[in-house]
Amino acid sequence: MNYQPTPEDKFSFGLWTVGWQGRDPFGDATRAPLDPAESVQRLAEIGAYGVTFHDDDLIPFGSSDTEREAHIKRFRQALDTTGLVVPMATTNLFTHPVFKDGAFTANDRDVRRYALRKTIRNVDLAVELGAHTYVAWGGREGAESGAAKDVRCALDRMKEAFDLLGEYVLEQGYDLRFAIEPKPNEPRGDILLPTVGHALAFIERLERPGMYGVNPEVGHEQMAGLNFPHSIAQALWAGKLFHIDLNGQTGIKYDQDLRFGAGDLRSAFWLVDLLERGGYDGPRHFDFKPPRTEDYEGVWESAAGCMRNYLILRERSAAFRADPEVQEALRASRLDELAVPTADDGLGGLLADRAAYEAFDVESAAARGMAFERLDQLAMDHLLGARG
Amino acid sequence: MNYQPTPEDKFSFGLWTVGWQGRDPFGDATRAPLDPAESVQRLAEIGAYGVTFHDDDLIPFGSSDTEREAHIKRFRQALDTTGLVVPMATTNLFTHPVFKDGAFTANDRDVRRYALRKTIRNVDLAVELGAHTYVAWGGREGAESGAAKDVRCALDRMKEAFDLLGEYVLEQGYDLRFAIEPKPNEPRGDILLPTVGHALAFIERLERPGMYGVNPEVGHEQMAGLNFPHSIAQALWAGKLFHIDLNGQTGIKYDQDLRFGAGDLRSAFWLVDLLERGGYDGPRHFDFKPPRTEDYEGVWESAAGCMRNYLILRERSAAFRADPEVQEALRASRLDELAVPTADDGLGGLLADRAAYEAFDVESAAARGMAFERLDQLAMDHLLGARG
Amino acid sequence: MNYQPTPEDKFSFGLWTVGWQGRDPFGDATRAPLDPAESVQRLAEIGAYGVTFHDDDLIPFGSSDTEREAHIKRFRQALDTTGLVVPMATTNLFTHPVFKDGAFTANDRDVRRYALRKTIRNVDLAVELGAHTYVAWGGREGAESGAAKDVRCALDRMKEAFDLLGEYVLEQGYDLRFAIEPKPNEPRGDILLPTVGHALAFIERLERPGMYGVNPEVGHEQMAGLNFPHSIAQALWAGKLFHIDLNGQTGIKYDQDLRFGAGDLRSAFWLVDLLERGGYDGPRHFDFKPPRTEDYEGVWESAAGCMRNYLILRERSAAFRADPEVQEALRASRLDELAVPTADDGLGGLLADRAAYEAFDVESAAARGMAFERLDQLAMDHLLGARG
Amino acid sequence: MNYQPTPEDKFSFGLWTVGWQGRDPFGDATRAPLDPAESVQRLAEIGAYGVTFHDDDLIPFGSSDTEREAHIKRFRQALDTTGLVVPMATTNLFTHPVFKDGAFTANDRDVRRYALRKTIRNVDLAVELGAHTYVAWGGREGAESGAAKDVRCALDRMKEAFDLLGEYVLEQGYDLRFAIEPKPNEPRGDILLPTVGHALAFIERLERPGMYGVNPEVGHEQMAGLNFPHSIAQALWAGKLFHIDLNGQTGIKYDQDLRFGAGDLRSAFWLVDLLERGGYDGPRHFDFKPPRTEDYEGVWESAAGCMRNYLILRERSAAFRADPEVQEALRASRLDELAVPTADDGLGGLLADRAAYEAFDVESAAARGMAFERLDQLAMDHLLGARG
Repeated sequence: MNYQPTPEDKFSFGLWTVGWQGRDPFGDATRAPLDPAESVQRLAEIGAYGVTFHDDDLIPFGSSDTEREAHIKRFRQALDTTGLVVPMATTNLFTHPVFKDGAFTANDRDVRRYALRKTIRNVDLAVELGAHTYVAWGGREGAESGAAKDVRCALDRMKEAFDLLGEYVLEQGYDLRFAIEPKPNEPRGDILLPTVGHALAFIERLERPGMYGVNPEVGHEQMAGLNFPHSIAQALWAGKLFHIDLNGQTGIKYDQDLRFGAGDLRSAFWLVDLLERGGYDGPRHFDFKPPRTEDYEGVWESAAGCMRNYLILRERSAAFRADPEVQEALRASRLDELAVPTADDGLGGLLADRAAYEAFDVESAAARGMAFERLDQLAMDHLLGARG
Repeated sequence: MNYQPTPEDKFSFGLWTVGWQGRDPFGDATRAPLDPAESVQRLAEIGAYGVTFHDDDLIPFGSSDTEREAHIKRFRQALDTTGLVVPMATTNLFTHPVFKDGAFTANDRDVRRYALRKTIRNVDLAVELGAHTYVAWGGREGAESGAAKDVRCALDRMKEAFDLLGEYVLEQGYDLRFAIEPKPNEPRGDILLPTVGHALAFIERLERPGMYGVNPEVGHEQMAGLNFPHSIAQALWAGKLFHIDLNGQTGIKYDQDLRFGAGDLRSAFWLVDLLERGGYDGPRHFDFKPPRTEDYEGVWESAAGCMRNYLILRERSAAFRADPEVQEALRASRLDELAVPTADDGLGGLLADRAAYEAFDVESAAARGMAFERLDQLAMDHLLGARG
Repeated sequence: MNYQPTPEDKFSFGLWTVGWQGRDPFGDATRAPLDPAESVQRLAEIGAYGVTFHDDDLIPFGSSDTEREAHIKRFRQALDTTGLVVPMATTNLFTHPVFKDGAFTANDRDVRRYALRKTIRNVDLAVELGAHTYVAWGGREGAESGAAKDVRCALDRMKEAFDLLGEYVLEQGYDLRFAIEPKPNEPRGDILLPTVGHALAFIERLERPGMYGVNPEVGHEQMAGLNFPHSIAQALWAGKLFHIDLNGQTGIKYDQDLRFGAGDLRSAFWLVDLLERGGYDGPRHFDFKPPRTEDYEGVWESAAGCMRNYLILRERSAAFRADPEVQEALRASRLDELAVPTADDGLGGLLADRAAYEAFDVESAAARGMAFERLDQLAMDHLLGARG
Repeated sequence: MNYQPTPEDKFSFGLWTVGWQGRDPFGDATRAPLDPAESVQRLAEIGAYGVTFHDDDLIPFGSSDTEREAHIKRFRQALDTTGLVVPMATTNLFTHPVFKDGAFTANDRDVRRYALRKTIRNVDLAVELGAHTYVAWGGREGAESGAAKDVRCALDRMKEAFDLLGEYVLEQGYDLRFAIEPKPNEPRGDILLPTVGHALAFIERLERPGMYGVNPEVGHEQMAGLNFPHSIAQALWAGKLFHIDLNGQTGIKYDQDLRFGAGDLRSAFWLVDLLERGGYDGPRHFDFKPPRTEDYEGVWESAAGCMRNYLILRERSAAFRADPEVQEALRASRLDELAVPTADDGLGGLLADRAAYEAFDVESAAARGMAFERLDQLAMDHLLGARG
């Protein structure tokens, strides 16, 4: 079987992923800086179709306008040469110490205003480079102690910020949507909008909810012990899966950003199964960090592994769904019944139906097995390529 | 100081809390059944104002109509004698094996219909007994394996169920609101609507969102490692804190249901601080399980401890907020600035303001300390009664 | 490929696993009781070689001596008929309310004495039925609150109990070793000897450490977020892996006891790889609970799945180790160097070696990549059957 | 009440704690470097008695011998001026990229030799400055993927390293003991010797176990969801609590290193209660990181808060133990019985005692309540200073 990616697979990578130098809370960088243009070149070679960036990935913080233009020009040339697209961009509102207490929800008003302006500036660039999605990860919006942040006030400020950004995009006539990326903690003790659910709920209180969706990241939801495919399913159900960050995480601990497939492999299988069947047609974006044990050869192996694993899982999911024995097992587990309305006879019908309650044989119904173990073992067999 | 509860404190308890017999996954009951009427009596004696119930707490599953009436009558007499009110009721959709794959989202359609009818029957009783809030905990709505539940279909069924319940309540003219209670897992491997955020988001897709809010439980949100006061703040911010379940939990593990105050004490302090200042005027409802090591003397000690701890924390929070040194520390941490809009000059003003970006002295702003540690130590001193 | 188990694979099951009726903290039993003799019959049919039991699994608590003999006789007949062996037995010191505060470390001295006698009685039966390993899971040895248990005293009592049991076994001339099973929590808030490490350390303080080893369970170590193969490696390294409990768990939450392979599949692969290469020749014992959604058909599917998954992983591990490209990758990652002593020249040699420190080129050494990502992707390919 | 620390309280701080500049995985330093001599001065002023260091805290990595001497001289002068002592020192084997795959267990043999020599060099300095404890935290000894580390080989190398260090100390005639510091993960995906238990067990396989103990850190054990006082009790029970790192952590997540008292306050109370009653007479060492939101004023507030919280908890624990009602409650919960041997009549006596089994009234024993809730509420009252 061939698991060679092509641009049709819509794989994209952040500049900050392959370009991560390996600085962690206890150690210095293990890799030299990587030139964005080289990243673009190499990503194209290994089969990616897109590249994404934070403003500061492309244009080092504090660059002059001239330097900025040079960086952008060089990047654009690399895009032109390779044919890579920029489907998404985002803002770095977390590295510089000025954001130590947050950006859109910093207690300091001038920091909030600065953060908005920094974002708007990069929104312009994002659109200029062709992006249609703008991701917002508020990694510093949070607190380590209880009185440090009045969360209701902070949510007011968060709403204000997103409403202003929406207004700006509308005024400029940009074709751009925002995707909010939730995370429960790290680098703050607790981060606001900690899960996909909290972000989805927040969006409904914005002035123009239609412009905003979510950008869930595998590891972030798993850092709260949550079932990632379940959260993705709810985001899809709400019409809000605007973008996705694929990576790996081994349970509830620090943010690992392993390559996709590493970590919870069974969950990755169900995720691919859901994305491929669920109507998501956006980029398959990898937001991972090649471990700092690796040199650049290892970095590119790691990036290639992300795509390879996706393709393997896509193949296995397709075989699972096509297998007649699986289809029979799904019926045996009454998945078809779940797709049927509970009360297409309406409330009146339900209330009048003695079979629904008074005459319902509870004990017989209770005795029916769900046959989930057989179904799950079939999925395991397909995942492991152990059928037939 | 006197920490004696009175009905004005609005403390309520579920029949299933003090009445829990101590059956756990590895052990048999350690306590004899408790007569609901006795529970009402004892709760009144220790200072509670309200009592809540699942249908099956009051009327054992499978009771005849005559038995049912007798149970209700006896309960009502106890309420009348003691003056206790019933602010909330809920449905048991998890104990009987018929619900092993869920209730509103069971794959079996007839189980879903039965669950709805069982709920509606108890809604009638809830209203009859004076309740204005109806809690829905979908403890069995979930799965242990990936193919067993199509989550998008399940959310369709969940929506259908809540919409039907809302329609029923409207038609009957009841003054009743629904409060959805999220939980991440246990007894299912993963439960749908796992956090306060996911539940808040779900509500927005219902036909009549205004009728639905959340009933967050301390331990449930902490089982996902989330900051409970933060989730409560978001629920308040969204106007959706309809009810609350107070208890204790020591981190990410099985659902412990410790008495309120046990578990994360600092979080409990901030929770009380938020509830008392945040405009929540509903019951302070305890959903705890007296450990199975206790006999009934221990049960009532445990119940009394829930209320005592709340009162101690309420006193400490009030002292914290009233302390001029705290008020000064809050200003030093610029909490007052967080309450100010970021851009009352509008988008145009922000964009035109060179001080916001071009002339902003980032390094000076970055150098300002937030003074959060001093503030948090003041809170610690107040919590511990160690000021002065 | 054929994944059909045979007795040579040494798969064993506890009576309490396939016989679990599905009672959980929120729900009643979903399955009727299973006759132990039938379990033995069915286990033999699906390819198991052994069966294990708690005293109370075989002989209901409170049976008379006559009833006891009848139960044993019937069980023995089933063993004789099927050829199944009993490699291990254990004591139920957790279900009856008398053990609500522990058994060997209960605060009540008479409960501790009773627990010891109950254990000794079943040790006799275990030996009579041919077991050479006796497992001790102290599920109730723990506490929910800080003053309830003086842990140092409790460890004294735990040591006393194990020393007495060792003395008994020696006196009787039994060929039996004890395997202590750690677990961090559930059903107690915190359980003593919470991890493999704590149990290994405890054993070293017993009078006859050689008689005691550990019986680690996949899910128990994962409930503490620990890497199970790492703990198994340390147990093997210490010569203390006397028995093992195989199952599945999806992260830090309640004890799930999923079938083996479900849960963390990558970890299961490394576990099988370690057991097969690491000199462990004891039973591959499954301690799982078929989900309560299943009827008995599902129960046997689930049991068969445990064995099938082990066999698939065993095959994949063998292929991984045999692959020349993997062997080259292991060398590229310098696993061969890890097997070489650090200082075979002794302390003197190390201190005298300028190349080791003064003349060591730190930066060059730091620049070497470890090539772990390539190695791990090869493992992934083998696990998924995606090589070639 | 006065909570002013004095040197008699034996509070010590690492140079790397107050000197942490706030660099985290997502952000740059927020504070300027702190001169070690100034740290010594300030720590003395706020009431500490000791200071500890990694080699690289005092002497920047790569310093020449002359620079080294100057740094040491300056530090020694500060010690002389202030009277602060150096009870402990340790080695930085994690910051430089050369240690990216570990130090004592790096796959590269030359890195392992370098790590040993780096350690030995600082052992000399530690002794020279008066330390009697040498801490070893192997933060990089671990892996992110399964094949990258053969754990049994790695434990061989770890043993080799500690045996060599012990040999060195013996040969030099130093009065120095080693304290191994466990941690489950971060910065590696999984770290070897992940818990206090695993470290205690490892020590028993060393050549001279008596020279080695543990240095448990509050947050590290809590990152595995374990009860920290329970692990400390086991370390004390084993005679192995050589040193301790006090700080705060809010559950299972990244390593937070909050000031002592922050995080799990109830656990901190029981920890102080245990240390003060348990015969531990070593330093109360704070290994925390003042949040990066703070400027240096906040840093010193945070350091002072660590000591203040310890003193408050010490006072509360003393009052708890002195309270006659508590003493009565402890008896009611039969803590006195736990201190009594289970079988002082020996195995023979136990076996012969019909009251222990045949005539034991299990149901009566099961019915006794443990009265733990009352006891725990008394503890809560004392902790909160709410006893009248």
